[in-house]
Amino acid sequence: MPIGTAAGLDPTVLLDTAYCQARIGLDEGGIPIGAALFSADGVLLGEGRNRRVQHDDPSVHGETDAFRAAGRQRDYSSTIMVTTLSPCWYCSGLIRQFGIGSVVIGENRNFVGGEDWLREAGVAITVVDDDRCVAMMADFIAENPLLWNEDIGVAEDA
Amino acid sequence: MPIGTAAGLDPTVLLDTAYCQARIGLDEGGIPIGAALFSADGVLLGEGRNRRVQHDDPSVHGETDAFRAAGRQRDYSSTIMVTTLSPCWYCSGLIRQFGIGSVVIGENRNFVGGEDWLREAGVAITVVDDDRCVAMMADFIAENPLLWNEDIGVAEDA
Repeated sequence: MPIGTAAGLDPTVLLDTAYCQARIGLDEGGIPIGAALFSADGVLLGEGRNRRVQHDDPSVHGETDAFRAAGRQRDYSSTIMVTTLSPCWYCSGLIRQFGIGSVVIGENRNFVGGEDWLREAGVAITVVDDDRCVAMMADFIAENPLLWNEDIGVAEDA
Repeated sequence: MPIGTAAGLDPTVLLDTAYCQARIGLDEGGIPIGAALFSADGVLLGEGRNRRVQHDDPSVHGETDAFRAAGRQRDYSSTIMVTTLSPCWYCSGLIRQFGIGSVVIGENRNFVGGEDWLREAGVAITVVDDDRCVAMMADFIAENPLLWNEDIGVAEDA
């Protein structure tokens, strides 16, 4: 079942929350990737953003931060992970391990992680292809290539 | 190249650090999974443990905690992630995304996550099959099945 069918949720509206988190991160001097975890009926369970720079913490990606903010849940199968950028393997692994049922992706032009792998595992994937997300990430990568490479585990001299 | 060949590191010695973290977690009332990230020459970069219970935080698995404790690194290819239990998809994704070159696994009898997937991606996997780790996890799961299921994303009524 595609994302939002049950409750009539609009992926672009859900994406606004993640985008806002990414913009906050950018204003903080961080990597502009935001995420949010919603229940099937559209309740915001948690939101978050990449904090590598802000907290000097490489483990905080947008999706892991939103997942943490949502606290301990017993069943993720009906939840929706919304993220401004295609989830990396780390975040794809999170989604798969906890059985998050749906993922809304702002864009996958600047980076593609495990979205096909998730789709094959039965996760409902919706790619919004949002122009704001594309431009925000493209500009950031162009201006901060080393920081971006650090965030996706590409060694500096690669 | 198998783990430890370069510097003559003994996987069972590296595992002691992760095992100690797991025991600390158990004493704290937590899920007893510990991990440590080492450099190729055996320097401990970071250690950690599952803190779902202690911090009420579902995002802190042993491996992600050790990864965080190691701080921001430019190149993980020569590092060694040591964990008491076969890494789940979340932690396997972490290892793959950041290009951690080697993984030492205490045991994979109580749980198997993405270790074959990592091996196929070129990660050097060493399974110690440590009796202490097997017994510690088996006892914990037997006594705390719901908590264990929560930690691996299995819904309570499954």
